Amino acid sequence: MEFAKSQKYISEFIGSFFLVLTVVGSGIMADRLSEDDGITLLGNAIPTGLTLVVIISIFGPISGAHFNPAVSLIFWLKKIISLSDLVAYVLFQIIGAIFGCLAANIIFELPIITISTNVRHDLSQFLSEILATFGLVLVIFLAREVARLNIPVLVGSYIASAYWFTSSTSFANPAVTIARQFSDTFTGISPSGIPSFVLAQIFGAILGYIVVRWLFRGV
Amino acid sequence: MEFAKSQKYISEFIGSFFLVLTVVGSGIMADRLSEDDGITLLGNAIPTGLTLVVIISIFGPISGAHFNPAVSLIFWLKKIISLSDLVAYVLFQIIGAIFGCLAANIIFELPIITISTNVRHDLSQFLSEILATFGLVLVIFLAREVARLNIPVLVGSYIASAYWFTSSTSFANPAVTIARQFSDTFTGISPSGIPSFVLAQIFGAILGYIVVRWLFRGV
Amino acid sequence: MEFAKSQKYISEFIGSFFLVLTVVGSGIMADRLSEDDGITLLGNAIPTGLTLVVIISIFGPISGAHFNPAVSLIFWLKKIISLSDLVAYVLFQIIGAIFGCLAANIIFELPIITISTNVRHDLSQFLSEILATFGLVLVIFLAREVARLNIPVLVGSYIASAYWFTSSTSFANPAVTIARQFSDTFTGISPSGIPSFVLAQIFGAILGYIVVRWLFRGV
Amino acid sequence: MEFAKSQKYISEFIGSFFLVLTVVGSGIMADRLSEDDGITLLGNAIPTGLTLVVIISIFGPISGAHFNPAVSLIFWLKKIISLSDLVAYVLFQIIGAIFGCLAANIIFELPIITISTNVRHDLSQFLSEILATFGLVLVIFLAREVARLNIPVLVGSYIASAYWFTSSTSFANPAVTIARQFSDTFTGISPSGIPSFVLAQIFGAILGYIVVRWLFRGV
Repeated sequence: MEFAKSQKYISEFIGSFFLVLTVVGSGIMADRLSEDDGITLLGNAIPTGLTLVVIISIFGPISGAHFNPAVSLIFWLKKIISLSDLVAYVLFQIIGAIFGCLAANIIFELPIITISTNVRHDLSQFLSEILATFGLVLVIFLAREVARLNIPVLVGSYIASAYWFTSSTSFANPAVTIARQFSDTFTGISPSGIPSFVLAQIFGAILGYIVVRWLFRGV
Repeated sequence: MEFAKSQKYISEFIGSFFLVLTVVGSGIMADRLSEDDGITLLGNAIPTGLTLVVIISIFGPISGAHFNPAVSLIFWLKKIISLSDLVAYVLFQIIGAIFGCLAANIIFELPIITISTNVRHDLSQFLSEILATFGLVLVIFLAREVARLNIPVLVGSYIASAYWFTSSTSFANPAVTIARQFSDTFTGISPSGIPSFVLAQIFGAILGYIVVRWLFRGV
Repeated sequence: MEFAKSQKYISEFIGSFFLVLTVVGSGIMADRLSEDDGITLLGNAIPTGLTLVVIISIFGPISGAHFNPAVSLIFWLKKIISLSDLVAYVLFQIIGAIFGCLAANIIFELPIITISTNVRHDLSQFLSEILATFGLVLVIFLAREVARLNIPVLVGSYIASAYWFTSSTSFANPAVTIARQFSDTFTGISPSGIPSFVLAQIFGAILGYIVVRWLFRGV
Repeated sequence: MEFAKSQKYISEFIGSFFLVLTVVGSGIMADRLSEDDGITLLGNAIPTGLTLVVIISIFGPISGAHFNPAVSLIFWLKKIISLSDLVAYVLFQIIGAIFGCLAANIIFELPIITISTNVRHDLSQFLSEILATFGLVLVIFLAREVARLNIPVLVGSYIASAYWFTSSTSFANPAVTIARQFSDTFTGISPSGIPSFVLAQIFGAILGYIVVRWLFRGV
């Protein structure tokens, strides 16, 4: 099957839309329903993992299902997508992600845009994001070599788990990070935290890429 | 394998029965057991997703495993089922769904029929149902093209997630919506909310169908 | 691969052992850890579903992975196993199940045997067990026709869900029912409830078998 | 695909790193977020199971994805790996596991090393570890014969379940046990408990190996 560029870009848009709708929407829902933050994180992490399984499965054959500029960057470094595709992908990912955040605000009866006051920029979260994105790139690009058909389940499982094993709840995605500033709710991030998060994510992704290359050197 | 119409219709009946038995029954169970509404929704969403995986897997090869008039409508628009099949499917889905609701009432020692007083008809829930059913149709009809064998898991995952990322908890199914008015419990919906929910679901489904067509135009 | 009878029987024994160890053990663990019965049921249902996926996967090719006299009964009615195998299977299932219960008592530092005081024998639970076992037989024997490789996941998913959508938490298994009288903990059943549970399970299983036959008549 | 020894060892290192990062990190996260120990164990067991699915899937084709000296021991007994590989694997597993524990401490802003004061060495936990590791070896080595492609999901499911059905929360892994002494948090183990845990794990593993051999004798 050969898809047009416009079909690929819209796929990245819709996937990123549903990804952030899930992250932010389930965060609002879970936070409203529960008194206990552990339950809130369960009600946030499980839906996120499940939505990832779904959107990577259905959009994978169309656009590759990146939904993540850090991942698209690696695809470009590996020369799988062109520079113009990289730029377009990142653009559609960010716009889709922001629309997903606004949609969550709307359907939960919040102002369409609020700026998050969730301060997240200490060193531990910076390191968390490096680790989280490093692992994500490992998962995607090792699975592409050895377990290609299972990528949707592996990425969904990895992120649902990483919500818990990092102190930042693993954003691991610059588009999602940028979008999450527009909802002052459970999963928001104040604008001040975005640069360090994005930096950490790009650094972690490149680190992951290097390790994957080494692991498959000579194979 | 070629199944008779009666076998298909009964499959739609039994599947819809177990779907609503799960939605309403687990809602009652979870609500009784827990003080925390976040846990109640976990105990409602997880079983619903799991039951969907099961019933779509075992009835898919017999009837197509729609269990949902909005989905059957799209199958008819795509000329996969005939108009008479559409009518019969919808009928058996609604009857099966209602029986599932009554069965839940009975085995949880409630009056066989109670009319829900759960008012659900504000704009945010209307928009939620559009989004939820739009996404559901995207999942089913994209997966039919690119990940056919995984439809049971994808639909189950999608709905379990959508419970959390919409303010309506994603009914996304007119038969289930109609049936859920007959139990005045956690997952009920007062009759006043049904028209707007069903309208939103049909609108969302058609919207999803249009997007799927566009995404596969020329492929 | 052709296995000896002794290998099959021991597989039924070990599988039933781990099944009841999981049901009773996780019930004790979850009940001790949590104040909220909704969480306790999550911590009981999820492990049970997961253990079923595991033991059906690894013992399926050896013994068929019944671990359930009601299921073995249907295999015998379908002439897949002989009467002597049925008797042996049921025996090893019950003994394995009881050992699993005693093991749970031991590793959770309870007296090796205590008799449950959990009274479970009202009409709603009787109906629940009919429905639960009816559904279980539908799942297993439809899946054998149309989704054979997925039986482990489907049975695990079904039972994890049925914990929530029935008022009895779906024992759906005479061997497990008998064994669960020997632990006066969260998942126990007082001896008085066993006859009606087992009766309901056998009745539900046969009902399921009849429906499956009808659904595949002429196919 | 043929991998170099160094690639295999580093795979064991990274996998063990992420395994313990998940166990310890999610334990800290869940314990901080929730007042209820049942939720904490959910938030610990689910991520652990998911991470196992991921790391076994992506590293399985490279190193075999043991991440566990007791499992490597059985691979050596079955003459699948050499003695020098066994020694190297165990070394890299332990070092990776310890680094994973330290990483968890760091990203959750704890002192890099703290010695656990979680006393775990009574008889019930000793028996739990025997059972848990016995079952783990059964799962891995039966699945290698009959369900090889599903090993990642089966091991992840088994361990997530075993967290609940044993009183020790199923360490079932000497490298993980050794590493968990270095974090005085929810999932820690005081040094005094390590010898009996490791002994039980090795004993359980060998027992499992014997049963697997018997089950496949003559097949």
